[in-house]
Amino acid sequence: MSAAALLRVDRERLWASLMEMARIGATANGGVTRLALSDEDKAGRDLFVRWAQELGCRIRIDAMGNIFARYAGTDETLAPVLTGSHGDSQPQGGRFDGIYGVLAGIELLRSLRDAGIRPRRSIEVVNWTNEEGSRFAPAMIGSGVACGVFDLEYGLSRTDREGRSLGEELQRIGYAGEGLPALQVHAAFELHIEQGPILEAEGLTIGVVTGGQGQRWYEGQFIGQAAHAGTTPMERRRDASLGLAELILLVNRIGLGVAPDGRATVGSARLTPNSRNVVPGRAEFTVEFRHPDADVLVEMDSRLREGIREIGARLRLEAALEQVFSYAPIAFAPHCVERVRDASERLGYPYRHMISGAGHDVLYVSRLAPSAMIFVPCVDGISHNEAEDIHPEWAAAGADVLLQAVLGAAA
Amino acid sequence: MSAAALLRVDRERLWASLMEMARIGATANGGVTRLALSDEDKAGRDLFVRWAQELGCRIRIDAMGNIFARYAGTDETLAPVLTGSHGDSQPQGGRFDGIYGVLAGIELLRSLRDAGIRPRRSIEVVNWTNEEGSRFAPAMIGSGVACGVFDLEYGLSRTDREGRSLGEELQRIGYAGEGLPALQVHAAFELHIEQGPILEAEGLTIGVVTGGQGQRWYEGQFIGQAAHAGTTPMERRRDASLGLAELILLVNRIGLGVAPDGRATVGSARLTPNSRNVVPGRAEFTVEFRHPDADVLVEMDSRLREGIREIGARLRLEAALEQVFSYAPIAFAPHCVERVRDASERLGYPYRHMISGAGHDVLYVSRLAPSAMIFVPCVDGISHNEAEDIHPEWAAAGADVLLQAVLGAAA
Repeated sequence: MSAAALLRVDRERLWASLMEMARIGATANGGVTRLALSDEDKAGRDLFVRWAQELGCRIRIDAMGNIFARYAGTDETLAPVLTGSHGDSQPQGGRFDGIYGVLAGIELLRSLRDAGIRPRRSIEVVNWTNEEGSRFAPAMIGSGVACGVFDLEYGLSRTDREGRSLGEELQRIGYAGEGLPALQVHAAFELHIEQGPILEAEGLTIGVVTGGQGQRWYEGQFIGQAAHAGTTPMERRRDASLGLAELILLVNRIGLGVAPDGRATVGSARLTPNSRNVVPGRAEFTVEFRHPDADVLVEMDSRLREGIREIGARLRLEAALEQVFSYAPIAFAPHCVERVRDASERLGYPYRHMISGAGHDVLYVSRLAPSAMIFVPCVDGISHNEAEDIHPEWAAAGADVLLQAVLGAAA
Repeated sequence: MSAAALLRVDRERLWASLMEMARIGATANGGVTRLALSDEDKAGRDLFVRWAQELGCRIRIDAMGNIFARYAGTDETLAPVLTGSHGDSQPQGGRFDGIYGVLAGIELLRSLRDAGIRPRRSIEVVNWTNEEGSRFAPAMIGSGVACGVFDLEYGLSRTDREGRSLGEELQRIGYAGEGLPALQVHAAFELHIEQGPILEAEGLTIGVVTGGQGQRWYEGQFIGQAAHAGTTPMERRRDASLGLAELILLVNRIGLGVAPDGRATVGSARLTPNSRNVVPGRAEFTVEFRHPDADVLVEMDSRLREGIREIGARLRLEAALEQVFSYAPIAFAPHCVERVRDASERLGYPYRHMISGAGHDVLYVSRLAPSAMIFVPCVDGISHNEAEDIHPEWAAAGADVLLQAVLGAAA
C-alpha cells in the first residue's frame, strides 16, 4: 500500500479553519448566522477564495454565484473530481452544517500540497449558493440551477422577505459570475454532518451514504362543523380536531411500519377557528414521507389515502389530501460508495451504510455524475441550531475519508 | 283560569320590532355587527330606551351602562321582577342572540298595557352591557359588576384592542350612568335562543332551563424534542404531536362518557415549530369541560390529569396542565323553573328541561335572586354567525312563556 493510501489531513489545521470561519456571523450562543448572500456570506466566501488562491487554485464563479476552486491535476483535459458543500447557514444555525464539507475540501488540498501529491485529474472544491433555502426558497437552488433542475432565470428571480432578488444580492456582494457551463464532473463526493442521531448512538464515526430518501409532501384537511363548545352535545358534533388526531396517529403508524429507513411526519397543523370555546370546524395538516425505495413510498401513499378516507367517513368529516411535492429516491453510484467504504475500512474508522434523510447539493449533482456522500456524527443529532456541535476527531475522520475517496477517483 | 293566564304577546309586533332593531348594524349577509359601546350599540340602546319610554317606563342607567326600564307595578315598595338580556352582538353575529330577550321584554310590557294589566310588582326590562365579551373581555362584564362578581373599577378599565376603555366608551356614547345599587330583584327570567341544536332536533319549542353548566378551562402542553423530519428515525423521536393527538382523543372519550349533559372540547392547539419538515417539539392545547354536576366535573378533571400523565410517560414527553378558569354549576330556583314549565304546559308549547351550556347574564343574577331561563330553538343550532335564524312562531312562543312567567312572579 502506498503512503498516499493512508494519507490523512492535518486535524489541527482543519479545526482551526473551521473555528476561524465560525467567527464570521458568530452568534451569542455559539452558532452562526450566515444567510445566503448576506454580508456575512460574502465575508465567508472571501475567506474561502483567499484560502483556495493560497493553494494555487483557479477560481470560477458561475452565474448563480457558485464558486469552484480548481486544484489542477496533471491532465487538465480530464473531467475533475468535485467535492465541497455550501457556506450559507440557517438563521442562528450551526458552525458545521455545510461549511464543514467546504473546508474539508480546502484541507484535503492543503494535505495533498504538503505531501507533494498532484493527482492526474483536477480537484474542484465547490461552495454552493443558497443551499439552506432559509433566505431564498427553494433550498439547493445554486446546485439545482447548475445541474439543470431549475433554469437560471428562475434561480436569479428568487426573492427574500424584503423583496430583494437573489440576482440583485449576488451583484451587491460581488459574486455574480458569468455563464453556466454544463457541469463536467468525473465523480463527486460531499462530506456533511449527519444532522441526525444514528451514528453517535451507534458509536460510529463514518456514515457511508448509499443514497437519498425519496420524499413526498402532502397538504390536507378535514372539514366538519364549527359549533359552540357549550351548547353542542358530543354526539351531534362534527369535530375536525378528531380527524387531525387520528391522522397524526395514522401517519406515525405508517412510519413505524417502514422503520428503520422510512420517515413519516405531521410537522404542521392548524385548527379553525382555534378558539377554546368552539368545536373546531376545520383542521389543516401537512404530511411528509421519506423512504429510499420508490415502491415503498407508493405503498405509504396508498395507506395514507385509504386511512384518510376511512377517518373522514367514520367521523362524518369531509377529507381532502393533495400531494404538493415529490422527490424520487436517489441511489449513489456503487463505485463511488465503494470508494468511501473502502477508505473508511483502510483508515480504521468504524462505519455503517446509511441513507441521507435530508436534501444535499450532491443529490442534484448525482443526476449528472457518479456521486457519493460521507456523514460524520453530530452531538445529539442536533443541527439547524446554535447548539450544533461535532468533535474534532469526527471532523478529522470525515476529512480523511473524503481525502482518500477524492484522491482515489482523481488518480 | 283567568284571561291573563292565557295572555299571549302580539307576534307580528314582536317580529317587527326584532326586524327594526336588526337594521342597526345590519351586515351584508343578514346578520348584525353591534359591538358593545359602538355607535351601533348606542343606536340600539336609543331605540330600546325610546320604546320603553313610550310604555311609560322609568329609565335607570347604572355606572356600567346597564339600562333598566321599569314598568311600575301597583306596589312600588316591592322588589321588581327582572327580565331582559343584552343588546350587543358578536362581530358579524346574529339578529337574535341577546336582543331577542330584550325585545321580548318590551313586547310583554306592550301586551300587558294593551290588556290593561298592571301587576302588583314592578317589571324591569334590562339591557346588559357587553355580554358578548368580543370587544371588551371578559364576557358578561355588565351583569357581573352589577351582581358583585367584579368590582366597578375592574369593569370600567377593560380595554378593547385599540386601547379604548369601557368607561371612556360609555362616556363617549352617553351611557355612563351613576351609581351601582345592590340589585333588589324578586325573581329574574331571561329568554334566549338556545344556540345549540337540541330543541330543533327534537321538534320542541321551549327549553325549560334548570341551570347552567359548571365549566373548567385548562391550558396544557406536551414537550418533546424538535428534530429533523428526514434524519430522525421514528423510534428515536419524542414527537409532541403524538401527545396532542392522544390528548384530543382522550378528551373526546371523557366527553362521551358524560353524555348527554357533559361537554369536553379541545378547541385550540398549536404545534411548534409547526414546519412540515420538523418533528414537532412542543404541542400546546386548551381543554374545556362543562357539566351541570360539580362532582362529575371533579371526576372529569381526574381522568384528564391521569390520562395526560399516562400519555406523557408512554411517549417520553414532558406534560403540563393548568386550570385557568372555573365556573361552578348553577341550579336555578325550582319555583322559577316551575313557572316556566307551567306556562309552557298551559300555553300548549312542547318543551323539555335542559341545561344552559353557554354563559348568560342571568347566571350572575341567580347568585342574588331566584331566577330561571327560557330557550327557544334556532335553525341548525347556529349562533355567533350571520346565518343565525329563528322562526317567528318560535320567537312568539318564547315571549308568550316569558310573559306568563314574569306575570306570575309579579302578580
